[in-house]
Amino acid sequence: MYKIIDGNINAPNGFESAGVACGVKLSNKTDLALIYSGVECSAAAVFTSNKVQAAPVTVSKKQITSKTSQAIVINSGNANACTGEKGIIDAWEMVNHTANELKINKENVLVASTGIIGYPLQMTKIKKGITDATKIKSSNPSTSAAKAILTTDISIKELAVEINTSYGKVKIGGIAKGSGMIAPNLSLPHATMIGVITSDVEISKSNLSELLSNASDNSFNMISVDGCESTNDCVFALANGISKVNYLDIKKDFDEAFEFICKELAKKIAADGEGATKLIEVNITGAKNIIEAKSVAKKIIQSDLVKSAIFGNDPNWGRIIAAAGSANIELNEEKLTLKLQDNILFKDGSSVKYKKSEISNLMESKSVSIELDLGVGVGKATAWGCDLTYDYVRINAEYST
Amino acid sequence: MYKIIDGNINAPNGFESAGVACGVKLSNKTDLALIYSGVECSAAAVFTSNKVQAAPVTVSKKQITSKTSQAIVINSGNANACTGEKGIIDAWEMVNHTANELKINKENVLVASTGIIGYPLQMTKIKKGITDATKIKSSNPSTSAAKAILTTDISIKELAVEINTSYGKVKIGGIAKGSGMIAPNLSLPHATMIGVITSDVEISKSNLSELLSNASDNSFNMISVDGCESTNDCVFALANGISKVNYLDIKKDFDEAFEFICKELAKKIAADGEGATKLIEVNITGAKNIIEAKSVAKKIIQSDLVKSAIFGNDPNWGRIIAAAGSANIELNEEKLTLKLQDNILFKDGSSVKYKKSEISNLMESKSVSIELDLGVGVGKATAWGCDLTYDYVRINAEYST
Repeated sequence: MYKIIDGNINAPNGFESAGVACGVKLSNKTDLALIYSGVECSAAAVFTSNKVQAAPVTVSKKQITSKTSQAIVINSGNANACTGEKGIIDAWEMVNHTANELKINKENVLVASTGIIGYPLQMTKIKKGITDATKIKSSNPSTSAAKAILTTDISIKELAVEINTSYGKVKIGGIAKGSGMIAPNLSLPHATMIGVITSDVEISKSNLSELLSNASDNSFNMISVDGCESTNDCVFALANGISKVNYLDIKKDFDEAFEFICKELAKKIAADGEGATKLIEVNITGAKNIIEAKSVAKKIIQSDLVKSAIFGNDPNWGRIIAAAGSANIELNEEKLTLKLQDNILFKDGSSVKYKKSEISNLMESKSVSIELDLGVGVGKATAWGCDLTYDYVRINAEYST
Repeated sequence: MYKIIDGNINAPNGFESAGVACGVKLSNKTDLALIYSGVECSAAAVFTSNKVQAAPVTVSKKQITSKTSQAIVINSGNANACTGEKGIIDAWEMVNHTANELKINKENVLVASTGIIGYPLQMTKIKKGITDATKIKSSNPSTSAAKAILTTDISIKELAVEINTSYGKVKIGGIAKGSGMIAPNLSLPHATMIGVITSDVEISKSNLSELLSNASDNSFNMISVDGCESTNDCVFALANGISKVNYLDIKKDFDEAFEFICKELAKKIAADGEGATKLIEVNITGAKNIIEAKSVAKKIIQSDLVKSAIFGNDPNWGRIIAAAGSANIELNEEKLTLKLQDNILFKDGSSVKYKKSEISNLMESKSVSIELDLGVGVGKATAWGCDLTYDYVRINAEYST
């Protein structure tokens, strides 16, 4: 059993981090984060499956093949994507400079970037930022790294849990960013969401990889802000073993806590979607299988019509059912059951009488729940997203100009 | 060779139509259209591939299997979708009442509906409307049918062409509606767009079916307003043979003119997308094959980030390339070439220097062109869509409440 504790990636023993303002973002906002473990870690990562991949993704895919890792450097404000050969050189330069400043093997450094696509990194600023970050990194329960990776995000996304077992205490901490261009499709080595999860558990690289991949499938890969998959998405996990508690001894508890961290971070990203006023949760049951359940859940969470209706507190359930039907899956219209905010609106092929104003009032909430049973099988899945608002349009019509 | 002439579905000889206000829509707006040919026609149809299908789709799928057709009745304001068994009975009642009033075989009547999902049709009003329409139908070049099928559309969508051949004159006319829930995926017997195409050519049912299916694939199936596929989409084609000109004698000219009509109607739908201020045209070249070209073109036209940027006149090309990469297709980043309003912004893996204010000025147009060469093969495709605006959100947050 796990319990939520204060802090983030610094909560597990042996981790330090820092966030600094190096000048890539204007107005002195922090834009460079460093996460560091004093000892070498088992590491795992999942990356975007976009066919256009940012330079840091290309570089980290290579770096994650090394036996161990112990540092992650992340800049925000510039994605270093579509930057050609110079982009690759710059990403390597971030790795090398970080390794030099930390006096560690360059094989141990991972790199990520997020921000606007298509502009060369200002390497003088980035390198100065890395140098500054290595000097001030600390294990204090600080939000500076969590803050430095944000772009159009409004809220800091961080979480930590502690697992108490008969073998000892283990902690897991996480930070994440992501607000727009969010519809991750992370695969073993796949959103621009960026996540970092740390733990002091003792775990093999292969076990950590499997764990991260499975947990991502049920969390980061089940969120959408705008259905747009980024060139830069990545989630890293580092485990330094300092607790001396072995993963295999506490597997069930650890798996559960790890997936909890991933889901909570994913939900924080969905809730903080660009312009969002509400978190939407879609629960599908009765699907032919899990794959079809996921497919329907994502189709609903990505429907601009459903998202706009929810922004307007409009119980326009026909749009939800139309979105479900547009997924290429099996459903039985005569057995469909739809609930909105726990109220049945559609059952056995027809609408159920309800008072529109009552349901609309229930929708005036920070969180809206859609439950759809497809009436076919036992497959189920959950997806998270947000409403489509005037502010989403404003933010994205004004982003680069 | 064809030339554009005045009029719409009434332009081909032998067709009559009417639009009346039966009271399904409030404020006395017209909401019921009838299209009629005095002689029996070869007929073809394509319907939505949504797994949830409106009652009129179910009924028209059955009706289109009859040897001939000669009337189409369409109501707007109510989609007769998700209405259970009553919906099916009502759709049949529309067919039967139309047949009775026109004194034709009921096998000859097709039916369609568009509007809000989940409410029973007000059949007394609908039947009165059908009776009225049969009385006032005429071959005058009127826009009343074209107007009566509209929902959130702002503009009437109609077009007619005349083909002059050594065999004689043939005409083709069309009307269409569609503004939201537009991402058709019409298959032989597939989008809420509704289209009706009429001609006085002599053509077999099977040839007309093949022609409509092929033309739809390159027109209606290549548009998107919001990526949401409707439960009600359908396009009907009727050809009454009155010109005595046989299709097989003028196949090349007729095919070209027919596809022109479909593409122009499709573009009118995209340009009139809910809240739209601009028509966006995406031309893909250099794809592995046509299927991949279509897939990329649709991914770009459906990207909320691209659509918002274009609304803001923001030449944020990185979003276009990221959208292309998120399609599951082959591309060569080092050979990608991207043009926006005829200006090269990206070539050979890197951005090309351009003045953002100049491109932004060029984007202040009713029509924005994106050309992307994937650098892989010879596949090409074109898709049409519109920008994502504050008004799209307003319209869809306020639609039913």
